[in-house]
Amino acid sequence: MKAVVFQGPFDVAVQEVEDPRVEKPLDAVVRVTTANICGSDLHPYEGRAPLDEGMVMGHENTGIVEEVGSAVERIRVGDRVSVPFNIGCGTCRNCTAGSTQACLRANPSGKPTAGYGYPQMGPYRGGQAELLRVPWADFNLLRLPPGDEHEQDFAMLSDIFPTGYHGAELAGVVPGSTVVVQGAGPVGLMAAHSAVLRGAARVFVVDKEADRLELARQLGAEPLDFSDTDPVEAVMDATDGAGVDCGIEAVGYQAHDAAGHEHPEMTLDRLVAVVRSTGRIGVVGVYVPEDPGASDPNAQQGRIAFDYGTVFDKNLTLGHGQCPVKRYNRHLRDLIVAGRATPGAITSHELPLADAPRAYEQFDKRVDGWTKVLLHPQAA
Amino acid sequence: MKAVVFQGPFDVAVQEVEDPRVEKPLDAVVRVTTANICGSDLHPYEGRAPLDEGMVMGHENTGIVEEVGSAVERIRVGDRVSVPFNIGCGTCRNCTAGSTQACLRANPSGKPTAGYGYPQMGPYRGGQAELLRVPWADFNLLRLPPGDEHEQDFAMLSDIFPTGYHGAELAGVVPGSTVVVQGAGPVGLMAAHSAVLRGAARVFVVDKEADRLELARQLGAEPLDFSDTDPVEAVMDATDGAGVDCGIEAVGYQAHDAAGHEHPEMTLDRLVAVVRSTGRIGVVGVYVPEDPGASDPNAQQGRIAFDYGTVFDKNLTLGHGQCPVKRYNRHLRDLIVAGRATPGAITSHELPLADAPRAYEQFDKRVDGWTKVLLHPQAA
Amino acid sequence: MKAVVFQGPFDVAVQEVEDPRVEKPLDAVVRVTTANICGSDLHPYEGRAPLDEGMVMGHENTGIVEEVGSAVERIRVGDRVSVPFNIGCGTCRNCTAGSTQACLRANPSGKPTAGYGYPQMGPYRGGQAELLRVPWADFNLLRLPPGDEHEQDFAMLSDIFPTGYHGAELAGVVPGSTVVVQGAGPVGLMAAHSAVLRGAARVFVVDKEADRLELARQLGAEPLDFSDTDPVEAVMDATDGAGVDCGIEAVGYQAHDAAGHEHPEMTLDRLVAVVRSTGRIGVVGVYVPEDPGASDPNAQQGRIAFDYGTVFDKNLTLGHGQCPVKRYNRHLRDLIVAGRATPGAITSHELPLADAPRAYEQFDKRVDGWTKVLLHPQAA
Amino acid sequence: MKAVVFQGPFDVAVQEVEDPRVEKPLDAVVRVTTANICGSDLHPYEGRAPLDEGMVMGHENTGIVEEVGSAVERIRVGDRVSVPFNIGCGTCRNCTAGSTQACLRANPSGKPTAGYGYPQMGPYRGGQAELLRVPWADFNLLRLPPGDEHEQDFAMLSDIFPTGYHGAELAGVVPGSTVVVQGAGPVGLMAAHSAVLRGAARVFVVDKEADRLELARQLGAEPLDFSDTDPVEAVMDATDGAGVDCGIEAVGYQAHDAAGHEHPEMTLDRLVAVVRSTGRIGVVGVYVPEDPGASDPNAQQGRIAFDYGTVFDKNLTLGHGQCPVKRYNRHLRDLIVAGRATPGAITSHELPLADAPRAYEQFDKRVDGWTKVLLHPQAA
Repeated sequence: MKAVVFQGPFDVAVQEVEDPRVEKPLDAVVRVTTANICGSDLHPYEGRAPLDEGMVMGHENTGIVEEVGSAVERIRVGDRVSVPFNIGCGTCRNCTAGSTQACLRANPSGKPTAGYGYPQMGPYRGGQAELLRVPWADFNLLRLPPGDEHEQDFAMLSDIFPTGYHGAELAGVVPGSTVVVQGAGPVGLMAAHSAVLRGAARVFVVDKEADRLELARQLGAEPLDFSDTDPVEAVMDATDGAGVDCGIEAVGYQAHDAAGHEHPEMTLDRLVAVVRSTGRIGVVGVYVPEDPGASDPNAQQGRIAFDYGTVFDKNLTLGHGQCPVKRYNRHLRDLIVAGRATPGAITSHELPLADAPRAYEQFDKRVDGWTKVLLHPQAA
Repeated sequence: MKAVVFQGPFDVAVQEVEDPRVEKPLDAVVRVTTANICGSDLHPYEGRAPLDEGMVMGHENTGIVEEVGSAVERIRVGDRVSVPFNIGCGTCRNCTAGSTQACLRANPSGKPTAGYGYPQMGPYRGGQAELLRVPWADFNLLRLPPGDEHEQDFAMLSDIFPTGYHGAELAGVVPGSTVVVQGAGPVGLMAAHSAVLRGAARVFVVDKEADRLELARQLGAEPLDFSDTDPVEAVMDATDGAGVDCGIEAVGYQAHDAAGHEHPEMTLDRLVAVVRSTGRIGVVGVYVPEDPGASDPNAQQGRIAFDYGTVFDKNLTLGHGQCPVKRYNRHLRDLIVAGRATPGAITSHELPLADAPRAYEQFDKRVDGWTKVLLHPQAA
Repeated sequence: MKAVVFQGPFDVAVQEVEDPRVEKPLDAVVRVTTANICGSDLHPYEGRAPLDEGMVMGHENTGIVEEVGSAVERIRVGDRVSVPFNIGCGTCRNCTAGSTQACLRANPSGKPTAGYGYPQMGPYRGGQAELLRVPWADFNLLRLPPGDEHEQDFAMLSDIFPTGYHGAELAGVVPGSTVVVQGAGPVGLMAAHSAVLRGAARVFVVDKEADRLELARQLGAEPLDFSDTDPVEAVMDATDGAGVDCGIEAVGYQAHDAAGHEHPEMTLDRLVAVVRSTGRIGVVGVYVPEDPGASDPNAQQGRIAFDYGTVFDKNLTLGHGQCPVKRYNRHLRDLIVAGRATPGAITSHELPLADAPRAYEQFDKRVDGWTKVLLHPQAA
Repeated sequence: MKAVVFQGPFDVAVQEVEDPRVEKPLDAVVRVTTANICGSDLHPYEGRAPLDEGMVMGHENTGIVEEVGSAVERIRVGDRVSVPFNIGCGTCRNCTAGSTQACLRANPSGKPTAGYGYPQMGPYRGGQAELLRVPWADFNLLRLPPGDEHEQDFAMLSDIFPTGYHGAELAGVVPGSTVVVQGAGPVGLMAAHSAVLRGAARVFVVDKEADRLELARQLGAEPLDFSDTDPVEAVMDATDGAGVDCGIEAVGYQAHDAAGHEHPEMTLDRLVAVVRSTGRIGVVGVYVPEDPGASDPNAQQGRIAFDYGTVFDKNLTLGHGQCPVKRYNRHLRDLIVAGRATPGAITSHELPLADAPRAYEQFDKRVDGWTKVLLHPQAA
């Protein structure tokens, strides 16, 4: 089959690779209809996270079940499914507690997390390919309504829509909340969309890219362009000095200022400054324990010297980490079906697999208008 | 009346000051039977937190109501009461949500927190004195059973018992949890006691002072002496590499190693290392936004460069801050009355007010055996 | 002043009564701009709940602060305010836990609940009058933006909007939930509005009045007319036999069938039948411990023989009771200000006080189109 | 193998039946070391719940894994395991949400619940036998420490200890709570034990059997004998009229008075009377949708005419149903290992399988001292 293969930093290629097959009784093989490129794919792409050469990329996958193993009972061949980017075994302590982002058994390295085509997430090939092997299929796969309706929206269910929603959950967004989202990339936009769906009264989104801020506005949020506005002052003014209830970090360790310089503490500091006493911050932008590429020696070891004294002083709660997709994807699917959620609205490009190398390049450069790319491996 | 008055760093004196009186219709005046010295009193004592000269110290107060204002209805003269160290107005947004540690109205400076005899907590004099003025008395005071039974135990209700309990709450301790507490000072010991009361299966307490570790053992915890044992390795070994569910930080920004050198990130790093993926950490040890006395330039601005990349990687939740005493003190009082909680067991000294200067000195030097000092202002 | 006075069953009159005044230091007097007639006002009106003759009616009150007592600090003369129908003392165990619907001190009878102009809720006169005395004003009053914008919407904040929202809270409505609301009276409509605001995927509303069902439809719900449709079958069909996650009871003990016969168990049974295993039911329709007017001897003693065996079998959770208005009204106000909530949309009539007797009569007869009446005591 | 076989009402026999075997790739076969007789086994035994003749009884099973299917990976032959009485598929909506008591796939009848050897719980044979087939073994089995230590305590992990604990959870027992448990049968005793473990300040247990009340006392509860004391008055007196925070129902639809007459509403009424306003009641005693044996026509249809008007009036929350054992059994096991929980203390008899008929008879008659019977199928 054809697949997007990692060749090294800034180099992906569409190549023929061996077809995946059912290896264990609980496996399924899915014919991929849509595989998105994720912002976090850029970490290995840029060489900031080490990925093996030859790995098939892609963890945002949607498709049709092609084949199932002998012990698969719930999922059937022909089912249209969303594939959560986390792989869970379904029976370990964390999976049974609903924390599939921290499966204790799926990653042979012993690290409590597993996923497709991603550094340190196990040997599982990604889904930017015609076919994808899915382990523990009955546990992991979410059934979608048959047909091809809502494909753009459903494509967001494997990662970014639940991830943005998880940010809102960690931040404690409830009806009437005021919210600041740091970052208007795909995850930040999904966090804003989720905050609105959860009934937030006001949602501010901070970024410096005009096209992304415009999408935030269309989703019902109030955009703040930090390249021409102090985003802390602006929020404090807009809330009569009270600050907001909830903060969502959707940028991560590569946060950079308007001049392009990285400041891994920048977005955290801004959230700590605007979230009111007793508030909550949900961090779904990625921070890493080791970042040899960082300029700051602390940051190289994952040590982020942000304004922690104020975190204590303000009695803040900070939640972190990968989204347990299964915890949310059923309800989010139902909101899409009901017409209340429209995460696919941020799609900027729908391309055949062959265009993947160019898409990675444009997306990595944040070329204007390249917000979210959906690859269609079955397209000519 | 006589009171313990702050004169400057390392200098407190027992002096005659003007009696407090009912100033507003909702005030009460309490005749103090017990006023503890708190570990956090050492921050101003050591000059690490700026307190006005002449301020009466003491925020851990218990006593008998002597007089009430004209609008006080619930509390009556003669009631035996515990005085939470937080002062809440009872009607602002935070107080009505149960977050009395973040009252928006009680502190004239506008900072959302108020208390007795403490830096930046408002103009309220402390209770290491014969009498104490308590604002919004109906809201703030907790009634105790009449008499003088359980005085040692009840004396812990104004701060350290609820504060330790808040650490266990923020850390999510439930029956069967495994827990690490950093610090066996009074708050750490109360956190360990609380974790046991909440049904924890195992509680480890890390410190380097043998007398305090022995108290931890008596409260049902497993002591770990970091002066001769690696406390991370020891916990990982004891849990077969799984780590613990919950971490409680009860030391704060002045954490120091066995040699006495300060490392404000030390206890946080140790908790991040031992708490398992998806776990929680409750931070009740104090961190401050500004610490001019710190050696590290980051720490001087309250920036603690701890292992945040791993916090994200492990999907941890971190809760912080002062304890909202009212949220817990009624239930904790009932556990004392029922004989199930015995926080007074850590009392090392009961002294008349006149001994306060010496007690501050010994406690500040961590002289062996000076764990917790109770001052009795009515004693001869 | 002029006020709506209860004279006996089916008899209210607008009369001159003595002006209320500040009686205690924490009182305020509010000049009432809007006082709604509530469905529960019909219980005393119909003689189904015993009210003293001469009582001023009305517990859904909005107005401008006219005068405050000497100990009132937070609220100021001239503030535009919403008055929660519950009266809380602000300092008892229940009030400080946020359960103002169960205040232990406000009702001199000792019953843990207090309110305005209502049977068994204490001696407090209602607000269908020019002026209203509000006890513990700093605690009870919610400040509204100055001016007269959103008056219809804000008028719903004193009772029915929070009450409907409380139903959704008790029923556990979260984004993506499916919900059935029994009853399209004002509270049922507010419950449906709240469920939509909380992100429900689908909301079914069951009633038999076409005008009310049309309002439900306008609020984003799916109406089910039980006079021509089996509402259990219809929901099961619409959900492919799965049933719904959440049920909200908004009718109460006077539930009656299409022929007008009372069946106090009818709506409960319908909810138990359609809520899926492990689901939740929130009961905000009123049930009473004694109902001498009931035909069934069990119901006369408040004993409702509904399908409790199935409640157990399905592992259901049932939450009940009056709404603690303060827990929600701030956030709901903010949603109104943000333009996201529009509870005033169900207003059918805005009348001067003089029209109250006719309004009670029409509303009691469920005359078509008399959904929600707002009285304006300051109107000519 | 030998097994306890249901022959008809009041008639069980130990017979040779065919050995169970691995039928599906995810099955395991467990060699049963301990199989308890449960109070709910008496429902089919007495003919109050219809069980097929020939069914092997027993759902409280502990043992050693004898054989595993080809797709079983986590559990290994030789593992000592506790078998939760609920059978969960591990992949349906309810199982993945942690509600294994309501599995949507395990029961071929479509009823959302499955278990071993019990009416309406599917075709699965029970474990009062030498061997037991366990479906979805990786998901369902809980690993125990090897050896034979704590066998009595671990034997309670399959049902009654988690079930009692679930009652405490549904009732919202937290440290400092006051609690009433209705019923001192095995589940009531486990509820009392759980309430103490969760930190309750006071736990009252109501029953009329002296031996069981004595066990309650030994577990730290205060026994109330309703055959000589009004259990409502006694609790109200003991709490100065305040009532208790939490009620746990551990009797069910066959509740009977001191004279032996059944009153299915009796224990519910008593809890509603003593639980304070805003409190919670957890119902783990069984109520059924159909009970042809009931004397009351309402009760025959599962309609329990209890004091529901007061439930509303007091703002109570009622949680119901079977325990999702997997939600709790890991933590409860750890408390046993830590020596903090001792559920086995209520064991009255340990018998070989051959004694099962006599044990059923004695237990059914509530013969003094027959509190909890453990059968050991491997014993001579």
